[in-house]
Amino acid sequence: MTDKQHWLPITQENIQKAHSLVKPYIYETPVLTCKTLNSLASTPQTPDALKGTPFEGQQPARPKINFFFKCENFQRIGAFKVRGAFHSILRVIQTKGNHAQAVALAASTLSIPAYIIMPSISLPSKIEATKGYGGKVIFSGSTSDEREAVVRKAQEETGAILIHPYDHPDTVLGQGTAGLELEAQVNKLVSETPGLSVRLGKDGKGCGLDAVITPLGGGGLNSGTASFFAEPRENGKKIYVFGAEPSFQGADDARRGLKAGERIPAVKSLTIADGLRTPMGEIAFSILSDSSKSRGVFSVTEEQIKSVMKLVVERMKIVIEPSAAVPLAVCLFDEEFRQIVEREAGEDGWNVGVIFSGGNTTIEAMSQLFATSSS
Amino acid sequence: MTDKQHWLPITQENIQKAHSLVKPYIYETPVLTCKTLNSLASTPQTPDALKGTPFEGQQPARPKINFFFKCENFQRIGAFKVRGAFHSILRVIQTKGNHAQAVALAASTLSIPAYIIMPSISLPSKIEATKGYGGKVIFSGSTSDEREAVVRKAQEETGAILIHPYDHPDTVLGQGTAGLELEAQVNKLVSETPGLSVRLGKDGKGCGLDAVITPLGGGGLNSGTASFFAEPRENGKKIYVFGAEPSFQGADDARRGLKAGERIPAVKSLTIADGLRTPMGEIAFSILSDSSKSRGVFSVTEEQIKSVMKLVVERMKIVIEPSAAVPLAVCLFDEEFRQIVEREAGEDGWNVGVIFSGGNTTIEAMSQLFATSSS
Repeated sequence: MTDKQHWLPITQENIQKAHSLVKPYIYETPVLTCKTLNSLASTPQTPDALKGTPFEGQQPARPKINFFFKCENFQRIGAFKVRGAFHSILRVIQTKGNHAQAVALAASTLSIPAYIIMPSISLPSKIEATKGYGGKVIFSGSTSDEREAVVRKAQEETGAILIHPYDHPDTVLGQGTAGLELEAQVNKLVSETPGLSVRLGKDGKGCGLDAVITPLGGGGLNSGTASFFAEPRENGKKIYVFGAEPSFQGADDARRGLKAGERIPAVKSLTIADGLRTPMGEIAFSILSDSSKSRGVFSVTEEQIKSVMKLVVERMKIVIEPSAAVPLAVCLFDEEFRQIVEREAGEDGWNVGVIFSGGNTTIEAMSQLFATSSS
Repeated sequence: MTDKQHWLPITQENIQKAHSLVKPYIYETPVLTCKTLNSLASTPQTPDALKGTPFEGQQPARPKINFFFKCENFQRIGAFKVRGAFHSILRVIQTKGNHAQAVALAASTLSIPAYIIMPSISLPSKIEATKGYGGKVIFSGSTSDEREAVVRKAQEETGAILIHPYDHPDTVLGQGTAGLELEAQVNKLVSETPGLSVRLGKDGKGCGLDAVITPLGGGGLNSGTASFFAEPRENGKKIYVFGAEPSFQGADDARRGLKAGERIPAVKSLTIADGLRTPMGEIAFSILSDSSKSRGVFSVTEEQIKSVMKLVVERMKIVIEPSAAVPLAVCLFDEEFRQIVEREAGEDGWNVGVIFSGGNTTIEAMSQLFATSSS
């Protein structure tokens, strides 16, 4: 990170600019709704489900929720990550001037050499897909220290520019474009779709989003989304942003770090939500520490993540990877989150945007997940 | 079938009327495209894949195909079947006059009692879902003779009206509405989507459908689709309709029966495409015997069906049931079909509409399918 003089502020305006840059290279993924999931979320959990939690013995919350699922599992390469990657590379071309443009033109014709540093424990399907897109894969250990050492070595040997997966403003701005599309698409859906399950305003018309929840690993997507929704909208309405993590083996580092006021720099978790094993980055920590941007981070168990994958596959008929199931698991199973919605939304309920971050899994991986689980 | 005096002719016009009737009750499911599958379909098979077929030793065909997938897996109840069911019930209300309307109004308020005759070997998930929608399930054997005996007995005991799953014009007309939507949606997509992979006309503009292929079990969907596309379109263009069946244990009864000029009335196949185990009905046989309506029926193996399910789950990130994978399997693996496309479409290629008929499966069912297969 030696190029801080070129760093853009992470604002709604710069996310709009990022969107104009990346738009030609990404899909505008659809926003889907699902009455079955609305109805499940709006049904109180059983008292049994609260056993062993701080809510044991209390009346389970009865929040009313209408979901809007932003399907980044249908995005190019099957995940939102292309947003940050395209934005970062396009920004390198912008800031390095003509020389870089000339190089890029040549490179795009000849295909840019890209060195991809991946933990050696990555899913074989992800390694194969990366190679399939022409990336040269270099393996590293799975901690960030191990990874950064390999990155430095590769940069010295190849002279390559680092495109960070989450801890760089260009990446965060790019990921924030998912939130931008979600807001516009929900407003359009609500105004054009008769009979949609949606919170109604005093004028009897459907309202836009009340809250958005995204997965949180390195924090690029969550902090980009939080930045996009930082300011109240034109009608004075504030749209709240929540983060969602797995709790397994300490993967809830963001939740714990934000509570303690200090970022947790290392995580060693083998949660099934393999995209969320990364510790939260410095930029995300600083954005999400601002309570005007983030309403908090919630975490769920491995079994809750699996339940949601099963619900989404069998009810919505779409494929999401375990990491993408985490925010919906918070909405369905985290009693603290559900109490917030019940208390603040009341009878009207909330329209909750959920970012399905990716869909990179295989039938075999799903089989294995559910074979080892049937307890 | 004692009400033949009320039978409507199965024509494009009556399918349009059926669509107006059912539209408020069904979803207009999306039409998706997928560059990876276009590219796979447009790559010749390996010579090995042709071993043991009549095409062994020949040059594999190099057809050019752009797919348009009509996603009835996202339909209400997860399958196109609601089209025929709603149309049949709405037609009963129409033809029986005020009395039936009054009964229906009462019934819809009190919830209509529906007796559902299902083979006892049906998937437990389908049985549960049927009960979940309030149907009273009555089990029968799996042959059509066994089923019809149980149906007659239930009718005598309850006085219920039979809503046939495929062999009644109202059902066929309802299923044909999937083809109607597909054509309109493809025309809209082609005209509104820059950069879409599509056959171009002489004017450089994208063209509509050249062919449509659907699964064929009882034949309601395939014969309804064939009837909708029977006449050339306004521009003089004929859109061809193909059928697709599993070949396992004689489930390719339609293909064999049409070739022999005589319908095969019974099938005993345990193909994984469990929606296509039914023998083709009389109405479908008569429609599909007309070569101006059907371009023929093709069949594929269990392994080919599984390959396609895996491709669709892992590349398109959507869930289809085995029966829904059969038409795409024909496009990818049936050399005779592929030669037709190569010969007739040439360099321009064809725009092929594929009806993904349903998505009713479970993670466990998929796991089992792929666990027993890994040979």
